[in-house]
Amino acid sequence: MNHSDYISALAKSAKDAQGTLGMSDHSARQAALRAAASQIRAQEAAILEANRKDISAGTDRGLTAAFIDRLTLDGARIAAMADGLDAIADLPDPLGATLASWTVPSGLAISRQSTALGVIGIIYESRPNVTVDAAGLCIKSGNAAILRGGSDSAHTSAILGDAMRHGLQEAGLPADAVQLVGTTDREAVGAMLTAVGEIDVIVPRGGKSLVARVQNEARVPVFAHLEGICHSYVAEGADRETATKILLNAKMRRTGICGATETLLLDRAIAADFLPVMAQALIEAGCALRGCPEACRLVSDMTAATEEDWATEYLDAILSVKIVADADDAIAHIKQYSSGHTEAVITSDAALIARFCNEIDSAIVMANASTQFADGGEFGMGAEIGIATGKLHARGPVGAAQLTSFKYVVQGDGHTRP
Amino acid sequence: MNHSDYISALAKSAKDAQGTLGMSDHSARQAALRAAASQIRAQEAAILEANRKDISAGTDRGLTAAFIDRLTLDGARIAAMADGLDAIADLPDPLGATLASWTVPSGLAISRQSTALGVIGIIYESRPNVTVDAAGLCIKSGNAAILRGGSDSAHTSAILGDAMRHGLQEAGLPADAVQLVGTTDREAVGAMLTAVGEIDVIVPRGGKSLVARVQNEARVPVFAHLEGICHSYVAEGADRETATKILLNAKMRRTGICGATETLLLDRAIAADFLPVMAQALIEAGCALRGCPEACRLVSDMTAATEEDWATEYLDAILSVKIVADADDAIAHIKQYSSGHTEAVITSDAALIARFCNEIDSAIVMANASTQFADGGEFGMGAEIGIATGKLHARGPVGAAQLTSFKYVVQGDGHTRP
Repeated sequence: MNHSDYISALAKSAKDAQGTLGMSDHSARQAALRAAASQIRAQEAAILEANRKDISAGTDRGLTAAFIDRLTLDGARIAAMADGLDAIADLPDPLGATLASWTVPSGLAISRQSTALGVIGIIYESRPNVTVDAAGLCIKSGNAAILRGGSDSAHTSAILGDAMRHGLQEAGLPADAVQLVGTTDREAVGAMLTAVGEIDVIVPRGGKSLVARVQNEARVPVFAHLEGICHSYVAEGADRETATKILLNAKMRRTGICGATETLLLDRAIAADFLPVMAQALIEAGCALRGCPEACRLVSDMTAATEEDWATEYLDAILSVKIVADADDAIAHIKQYSSGHTEAVITSDAALIARFCNEIDSAIVMANASTQFADGGEFGMGAEIGIATGKLHARGPVGAAQLTSFKYVVQGDGHTRP
Repeated sequence: MNHSDYISALAKSAKDAQGTLGMSDHSARQAALRAAASQIRAQEAAILEANRKDISAGTDRGLTAAFIDRLTLDGARIAAMADGLDAIADLPDPLGATLASWTVPSGLAISRQSTALGVIGIIYESRPNVTVDAAGLCIKSGNAAILRGGSDSAHTSAILGDAMRHGLQEAGLPADAVQLVGTTDREAVGAMLTAVGEIDVIVPRGGKSLVARVQNEARVPVFAHLEGICHSYVAEGADRETATKILLNAKMRRTGICGATETLLLDRAIAADFLPVMAQALIEAGCALRGCPEACRLVSDMTAATEEDWATEYLDAILSVKIVADADDAIAHIKQYSSGHTEAVITSDAALIARFCNEIDSAIVMANASTQFADGGEFGMGAEIGIATGKLHARGPVGAAQLTSFKYVVQGDGHTRP
């Protein structure tokens, strides 16, 4: 069977299973999530054994230490995955909710009700928790999941996928609503990306090259972000210590996540007062600074930023710094360079906050908080299947509620249209 | 300039204008809609003159009478377009609405707020009202519209497009938020369909061949329906006279619209009682009937339906009729043949209504009403830019509210992430 036929067959059985899952009671989906969590806890030893196989093979192939770290499970990480499923189970049912209802002049009662989306394809790399989080959110929202993990985590993904299928079966739901692609051939990914009418949406989770390939090749709609060039704008009216504390967290808490701040914009009026203090804190934390000429004049330990720096997602302990004339200037810079992920303003000026949040059209706009809060868990979604910067359907952290569609239910009483 | 460069330039100026329109006050967008309505009324004579040019050219080219009829404007149709804009102006602002808000354990206050979508491309045929309805809904929702009408209505579309631009200018908004593609070359359509990153969504309005071309060639997301194979299921518990009245309307009120019923499903238990009466009413109204063998035995003036009939959108005075064993049978038939547009159940059995509305996953599910109500105006949306059967973003009648996206606004108080 070629890859296209194989993916078609997988998607067809997933769609059939989804027909049942999408109409199932919330209690059954909750039971499936909890049974999967129990299975993951009960299978801890076997999961660790499978994970060791992947780690051993990866080490032999010379994978980087960072890669091996992302791949590696331990007791705490396994417990966190299981706890995450229980947290998803506890969330309200995203299906069957009345999103709006009204009566029209003809007397028809119309409501818009949430429904499952269909079949979701998830293409990811080595993080084992993606298998569990993505399948868990799909089960919650009545969708089938077709999971295609990286070859480097094949054993780990397989046993975790089995646990999810076991959970479905325990709850009397069709196991085929969660399917793992049984080949690590790259062509299988191509077949998923072009499975129009069979897979309803693709979510890529991984580095920029994976996401770029998915966005370029996909004919199926994609929920994704290519990069997170996030800005923190410290404006007049900010408190210096608070701003320093937020910025330090936004940049340095974890530098490798998409919500990490990459560029600091700072109002000229407060630059001489703020920047030396902020720079010292960042440098002490191990951050390298690249600044505009004006910033470089204020801080000696700063190299000159190039045009490329403003458009770079470092994912590293590097921050670009630009002094701006005012909010107009800051907003213009963000509109030019932002990737539409997350931007924050730090100030006590309520009018400026309102203006920033209105004019900046990124998926997430923040006031007086670290951009590192850009995360489905922190948003109260239990988990996220990814973060999207597109404007169609899902945007920002994609939780169970964003994996739904809707339909109109119209109640008449013998109504005919004039 | 080639077509691709031309569309890029058009989309770029549309996007710039949209940046202003998307942040504008509702009162300004309302003023633009009302000024456009006034301009259309004031320009009635010139609009009729432009329309006469198109009709004359079309007649010379031998266009069908039905085509000429769709193209033709008169005073009443012009007034209806203007009134439609006023109705859209009166609707609530779809932008800046707080769609949800909550506080997370960290203390961050999060809200999801509606935003404009971006640049909408509308590709349509000869109906002049599409220019006005589509541009009006886009203005209302803060989006730019790139309108590409058929060559047969070029003069009419041009003067109506000018009226919409005039309305924007009168309200102090950028006229380039509404742009007409200035060439009727088919290749310009191809350039629109592939303008990824420049046009955010395409809405085709027209016959099946246009929509099929758009769906096949588009790399930009599309809101559309290919066909409307709508079912009316008359079930046990229905009143015969009510069911007959609804069905007659659902099929015959206008046979050429996408919400017209194409197939009647009828419970076996009531078939002998209901079908002869219903068939007589339909035949008297000029409808031809094509039935399953059992239906043909009950009504002599019915020809045998073929497998193809169940999958056909007649858009004509023809109805296919199938006797079903029960609701299982009816739902299975709909799942197999429906195009996901609109399906109705006619019965007084509340449990069956609930089941039908839950299990049928079409854009619109109805109880005890004519499927011809599947229309944005009838749904209280003022107008519709189209009806979508996809499950991503928009579904069913697409009004101003469905032409929005959202962003998350996060309010902190010096929050850093642990």
